[in-house]
Amino acid sequence: MFLTRSEYDRGVNTFSPEGRLFQVEYAIEAIKLGSIAIGIKTSEGVVLGVEKRLTSNLLVGTSIEKILEIDTHIGCAMSGLTADSRTIIDHARVEAQNHTFTYEEKIPVESLSQSICDLALRFGEGAFGEKAIMSRPFGVSLLVAGCDEKGPQLYYTDPSGSLVHYEAKAIGAGSEGAQTELQQSYFKTISLKEAEVLALKVLKQVMEEKLNKSNIQLAKVTADSGYAVYSTDELQDIISRLELQE
Amino acid sequence: MFLTRSEYDRGVNTFSPEGRLFQVEYAIEAIKLGSIAIGIKTSEGVVLGVEKRLTSNLLVGTSIEKILEIDTHIGCAMSGLTADSRTIIDHARVEAQNHTFTYEEKIPVESLSQSICDLALRFGEGAFGEKAIMSRPFGVSLLVAGCDEKGPQLYYTDPSGSLVHYEAKAIGAGSEGAQTELQQSYFKTISLKEAEVLALKVLKQVMEEKLNKSNIQLAKVTADSGYAVYSTDELQDIISRLELQE
Amino acid sequence: MFLTRSEYDRGVNTFSPEGRLFQVEYAIEAIKLGSIAIGIKTSEGVVLGVEKRLTSNLLVGTSIEKILEIDTHIGCAMSGLTADSRTIIDHARVEAQNHTFTYEEKIPVESLSQSICDLALRFGEGAFGEKAIMSRPFGVSLLVAGCDEKGPQLYYTDPSGSLVHYEAKAIGAGSEGAQTELQQSYFKTISLKEAEVLALKVLKQVMEEKLNKSNIQLAKVTADSGYAVYSTDELQDIISRLELQE
Amino acid sequence: MFLTRSEYDRGVNTFSPEGRLFQVEYAIEAIKLGSIAIGIKTSEGVVLGVEKRLTSNLLVGTSIEKILEIDTHIGCAMSGLTADSRTIIDHARVEAQNHTFTYEEKIPVESLSQSICDLALRFGEGAFGEKAIMSRPFGVSLLVAGCDEKGPQLYYTDPSGSLVHYEAKAIGAGSEGAQTELQQSYFKTISLKEAEVLALKVLKQVMEEKLNKSNIQLAKVTADSGYAVYSTDELQDIISRLELQE
Amino acid sequence: MFLTRSEYDRGVNTFSPEGRLFQVEYAIEAIKLGSIAIGIKTSEGVVLGVEKRLTSNLLVGTSIEKILEIDTHIGCAMSGLTADSRTIIDHARVEAQNHTFTYEEKIPVESLSQSICDLALRFGEGAFGEKAIMSRPFGVSLLVAGCDEKGPQLYYTDPSGSLVHYEAKAIGAGSEGAQTELQQSYFKTISLKEAEVLALKVLKQVMEEKLNKSNIQLAKVTADSGYAVYSTDELQDIISRLELQE
Amino acid sequence: MFLTRSEYDRGVNTFSPEGRLFQVEYAIEAIKLGSIAIGIKTSEGVVLGVEKRLTSNLLVGTSIEKILEIDTHIGCAMSGLTADSRTIIDHARVEAQNHTFTYEEKIPVESLSQSICDLALRFGEGAFGEKAIMSRPFGVSLLVAGCDEKGPQLYYTDPSGSLVHYEAKAIGAGSEGAQTELQQSYFKTISLKEAEVLALKVLKQVMEEKLNKSNIQLAKVTADSGYAVYSTDELQDIISRLELQE
Amino acid sequence: MFLTRSEYDRGVNTFSPEGRLFQVEYAIEAIKLGSIAIGIKTSEGVVLGVEKRLTSNLLVGTSIEKILEIDTHIGCAMSGLTADSRTIIDHARVEAQNHTFTYEEKIPVESLSQSICDLALRFGEGAFGEKAIMSRPFGVSLLVAGCDEKGPQLYYTDPSGSLVHYEAKAIGAGSEGAQTELQQSYFKTISLKEAEVLALKVLKQVMEEKLNKSNIQLAKVTADSGYAVYSTDELQDIISRLELQE
Repeated sequence: MFLTRSEYDRGVNTFSPEGRLFQVEYAIEAIKLGSIAIGIKTSEGVVLGVEKRLTSNLLVGTSIEKILEIDTHIGCAMSGLTADSRTIIDHARVEAQNHTFTYEEKIPVESLSQSICDLALRFGEGAFGEKAIMSRPFGVSLLVAGCDEKGPQLYYTDPSGSLVHYEAKAIGAGSEGAQTELQQSYFKTISLKEAEVLALKVLKQVMEEKLNKSNIQLAKVTADSGYAVYSTDELQDIISRLELQE
Repeated sequence: MFLTRSEYDRGVNTFSPEGRLFQVEYAIEAIKLGSIAIGIKTSEGVVLGVEKRLTSNLLVGTSIEKILEIDTHIGCAMSGLTADSRTIIDHARVEAQNHTFTYEEKIPVESLSQSICDLALRFGEGAFGEKAIMSRPFGVSLLVAGCDEKGPQLYYTDPSGSLVHYEAKAIGAGSEGAQTELQQSYFKTISLKEAEVLALKVLKQVMEEKLNKSNIQLAKVTADSGYAVYSTDELQDIISRLELQE
Repeated sequence: MFLTRSEYDRGVNTFSPEGRLFQVEYAIEAIKLGSIAIGIKTSEGVVLGVEKRLTSNLLVGTSIEKILEIDTHIGCAMSGLTADSRTIIDHARVEAQNHTFTYEEKIPVESLSQSICDLALRFGEGAFGEKAIMSRPFGVSLLVAGCDEKGPQLYYTDPSGSLVHYEAKAIGAGSEGAQTELQQSYFKTISLKEAEVLALKVLKQVMEEKLNKSNIQLAKVTADSGYAVYSTDELQDIISRLELQE
Repeated sequence: MFLTRSEYDRGVNTFSPEGRLFQVEYAIEAIKLGSIAIGIKTSEGVVLGVEKRLTSNLLVGTSIEKILEIDTHIGCAMSGLTADSRTIIDHARVEAQNHTFTYEEKIPVESLSQSICDLALRFGEGAFGEKAIMSRPFGVSLLVAGCDEKGPQLYYTDPSGSLVHYEAKAIGAGSEGAQTELQQSYFKTISLKEAEVLALKVLKQVMEEKLNKSNIQLAKVTADSGYAVYSTDELQDIISRLELQE
Repeated sequence: MFLTRSEYDRGVNTFSPEGRLFQVEYAIEAIKLGSIAIGIKTSEGVVLGVEKRLTSNLLVGTSIEKILEIDTHIGCAMSGLTADSRTIIDHARVEAQNHTFTYEEKIPVESLSQSICDLALRFGEGAFGEKAIMSRPFGVSLLVAGCDEKGPQLYYTDPSGSLVHYEAKAIGAGSEGAQTELQQSYFKTISLKEAEVLALKVLKQVMEEKLNKSNIQLAKVTADSGYAVYSTDELQDIISRLELQE
Repeated sequence: MFLTRSEYDRGVNTFSPEGRLFQVEYAIEAIKLGSIAIGIKTSEGVVLGVEKRLTSNLLVGTSIEKILEIDTHIGCAMSGLTADSRTIIDHARVEAQNHTFTYEEKIPVESLSQSICDLALRFGEGAFGEKAIMSRPFGVSLLVAGCDEKGPQLYYTDPSGSLVHYEAKAIGAGSEGAQTELQQSYFKTISLKEAEVLALKVLKQVMEEKLNKSNIQLAKVTADSGYAVYSTDELQDIISRLELQE
Repeated sequence: MFLTRSEYDRGVNTFSPEGRLFQVEYAIEAIKLGSIAIGIKTSEGVVLGVEKRLTSNLLVGTSIEKILEIDTHIGCAMSGLTADSRTIIDHARVEAQNHTFTYEEKIPVESLSQSICDLALRFGEGAFGEKAIMSRPFGVSLLVAGCDEKGPQLYYTDPSGSLVHYEAKAIGAGSEGAQTELQQSYFKTISLKEAEVLALKVLKQVMEEKLNKSNIQLAKVTADSGYAVYSTDELQDIISRLELQE
């Protein structure tokens, strides 16, 4: 009686008979092709970690930024289509600055994450009420890390526009194994220093290449110092701590 | 003579030969994939209850809100696509505030529910008269609970834009069994305290996981206190009362 | 030489080789799925009657309104998609108020019915001259009852935008049998009291459930009192009169 | 080499390889499904006659108007989709009033007929220069009868937008037989009284039901009195004259 | 490797692999279904002649105008869809009047013909730069005859928007045979009187009906008198001269 | 794995799997159906030559202009769809005049050619940034010849919007053979007089008809005299010189 | 269960089930059909080199510019569709000038490259938020070379809108072999003079024609002199140095 699944999956915004939106589900697949990204929340702050895929030794490593600052108290790690993330993050930065300007306070982390999700719904042809940004779903997921009056927080957004608050979350290629590892090793009272080592431990398990200070990126968002990227020296130090542990 | 059903079901807004609108029916299917939500009306106020599906122990439970405040005297429970519900509820909140601002009175529960239904019709490509919000039907149903001069009321809205006034209603996965249970156990003179226990009893029957104070959410709307979410302690207390009963 | 019927029927607004508009015909089918509605004109006024389908005993019966007031001197009974009728009736109410405001007289029943039909034509993608309200035909028929200087009148509108003046008319599921009954029992000099009983007699024949004061709704529009809905007591009284007759 | 005819006929405004516009031709078919309408020009004025199809004895006959006034000196008879004709005639009335207002003279019959034809071309998706009124061709033909300084005139318009001046013309179901009869019986010096009888004679031959004063409508447009509909008594009188003749 | 021809021919404005625009070619076919039209240029002026197809003896012959005045010094003969020609000629008349108003001189015949061709290109969906007039190519060809400072001129326009200057040209059904006859009989020094007879001679050969003063139309554009239609008497006179010749 | 070529070639602006734009390639085919055009650059100026296809001896030869003036110092020869070239050349003329008006200097030949190419890209449905002129690629190629401060120049533009500077170039039907001939006979120090003869020699080889002073057109653009078309006498003179050479 | 790859690849902006965007991937294929382009970064500046394909000896070589200036301190080499690159580079030039005007400083190389990538995302039908420039992805890749406060930089942009910082990069036909060569021969301390020879060495390996001073183009961007194209003499000099090395 029904068509096969494949007949419904090209309409950008059409329900299948089971009530599914395939184009959104396929956009979520695009993220599984992206590089791994991890976020871990502690009481001191949030740690974000990503793999940098260096496809050529002539590529300037520092230019592949998969962890980005949104405001001084908020950063994010991305997985999926790089160009799509740039559009989303540009919007998020403007949103953050507008909030500061209007209310004379930093934007709450949850409000900012929400506005990213609202953007994710604004695609397709028929939506004139709010302006469409794209003619297809965004092919990118973000881990938004920040500190505000509610303390450190880690949000996960995906192409369907849903928003979830996590204590630790992995996205991208190999994220299923990484999430299992996080669930086994994470504990509520984890310190920021322990979280740094855990992030690297999980990345190491998932990455095909051997992990070193050049092919990963790490950042933290703390109440005191806000968003900060780890230097190569700091990375080497954490790698040493990880090796000691093993 | 006719095409099979499947040929008509991809047009966002096209009648089949029997006069059916398949895309709207498929959006209703999307709700059957959502988590269970229940509403029970009493003479003292309305009780709303939902299951929270915790797919990971690293997920922060309080962040999955499926019961939300619309105004101080109106709340709602949702089932279906989370991101769609956010759009609808944002509109409903604005509608409520506009009413208060214009008429200097709280918006009647029925008017507010009506405006949610009107929104549900505003999708598709050809509708220029009133601005289209989405290029497809909304994939979400709401139980709108509120108290106004007409007393406590519970409305049910679905993607077709229809609006029904219920005394007790269940939506989402497993809602058919839950509705049967409600029809057997509900009685006109039910007190708010009894309704709290009934809501949990029905959720317990439908949920796959064992019900506990973490994987459900409960709220009430009463004439005196308006919209209020139950604390974990209050939830534990009701669970105890339910266990005594059994 | 021609394609089969089914190839032409998905274009929202396309003629088939025989000169038919299938989407409009399918919208008319949608009405045959709706509940029965009846209108009877007398020299004293017009009687409207509908079945209320109570799918659940937890549903608040008074909330299912299939007979609605448009102005103090005009009411209507509907069959088909409830949400569509709300859009049409909202427009009709505004039309009526505009007329009163502009001309300082009540809108003639025929003018109002005409404006409902004009609305029915305003669908589809290509119509920029007058704003399109919907991207598909409306899936609803109305029986418009009113009293003006020309006396009591009963109009029937359908999704094709055609408008017909009737003395007695039935629409919705089972309307064919009901119309036959009306043609046999109706007589020019019928009194309002007799029409009340006739309306219930016809509803009783068509309804699957046993007719009682809860699962029907009755209203009248008279020159003296305008639009008025019958109370449960009044309904019970007419049911008694009907039983006496049998 | 070519596709079969049927592949070209769903494009609203696309030529087939032979240079035909099928959607317009199909709209012309819609008129063949309509009821018969006749126009006869005499030196004294023009007579218009139509069949009224009474599908139910509860239908108020006077409400089925297939002959309508456009201005005091112009009337028209229609065949095809009733709702489409209403749109066209509303435009024609405004056109006539605008002319009177601007030039302080009655609109010439030919100008008015021309403006109806121009409207017929204004459909489809791509026409931005002049506003599109419909997304499909109009499914209606008109016989426009009027008297101006050029004397009595009878114009025929169809969905292709073509305009022809006739001395006598029949349209709608059975119009071919009717036209043959007109060609045999019409003569240049026919008087208005003779034309009345001829109109009824032709209607009688074509109608399935027996012709009587209730199931037909007759109107005339004369230089002296302008547009006038015949009363039932006048109709009965002409029927008598017709019976005498036979 | 390629699709068959038929797959490309429904796109309103799409090239086939050989670089052809089929919808435009099909529109040209529409003209071959039209009635014959002829233009002959002489040093004294231009003669235009057309067949009038009288499908019914009740049709008022003078109303079928296939030769029309554009300005006092320009006229045209058309073949193809009558309603399309009306749109084109209305535009041409406005163009001519605008020119006169702006430059205080009569519009040159070539400029006017050019503006007709420009109009022919303005169809289809994607053309926003210049407003589209139609959603398909115009299905009409014109023979534009005029006299200006460059003397008598005869231009031929077709649906592709091309413009050619001719000394004698035939268009419509049977135009191929007519053109052959023109090429044999035309000579540079032909007088206007001789051209009148030649036009009728060619029409006579092509027309299925016997040529008479009622089923043809003839007009001339001369430097002295501008555009002028021949009266029935004048036509009869030319027919006599033609018969003498034979 | 891939579809055949033919499946990709109807999208106006869609890449095939090999990265090709078929509709643009097909538009280039349209030019191969056009008549031959040739351009030859010398140090004294540029010579342009085209074949005039006279399909009928009743066609006024001087009216088929395939070489046109753009500004006093720029001319062009075209091949392909005549109506498309008119749109392009009208734009080019306005561009040239705007430049003169704004900068008080003649537009450089390269700038003007560039603006023609920019126009070629402005087609299709989705381009709102710069207004689309056509819904399909232009089916015309131009040889733009001009003299400015950089001396004589000859540019070639095609439907893909690419622009190439040539010393000698042939386009249209038979252009491949013509280009070969040009490559063999052209030399850097060729004089204008020699280029005139070479142009005719190449045309003669390619044309099916015997070359004479009526079925070709020749123009030159020199620093001194700007754009100038050759008279029939001048053409006859060059033909004589060509015959002497042979 | 899934359709074959080919069914998804014609939607301009649609995900395949694996989360891929085929039209963007096909646009990347278009670049593989383009001529080779190379960029090499040194501490003194960046060298850009391209092949010029001379399809005819009558083509003026200097007119085929595949290396272009964007600002005095930024240049770029392109591969792919020439006409598309012109649109992108025009935008980039305006962007650079706007920056200078607004901030009174030269635009940073990374900002400018970013703005080119943002442009690459702005295609398709549904994107109203930011104006669409094209209805398809741009079929061009750029190597953007520049010097600012961060020193010499070389960025690579492709049709997907991604942006990568390289030390040496080859694009276009044969780029894979060229990139391998670059990876073997490039070293961090390479001087500008050595980079010139390396660029030619790589071009020589990839080009089908024998490399000479006419069929290549070379440019450099240095901190001192900004963007500069090499003259033919300079090219000959580098070729001599390359030959010495071999």
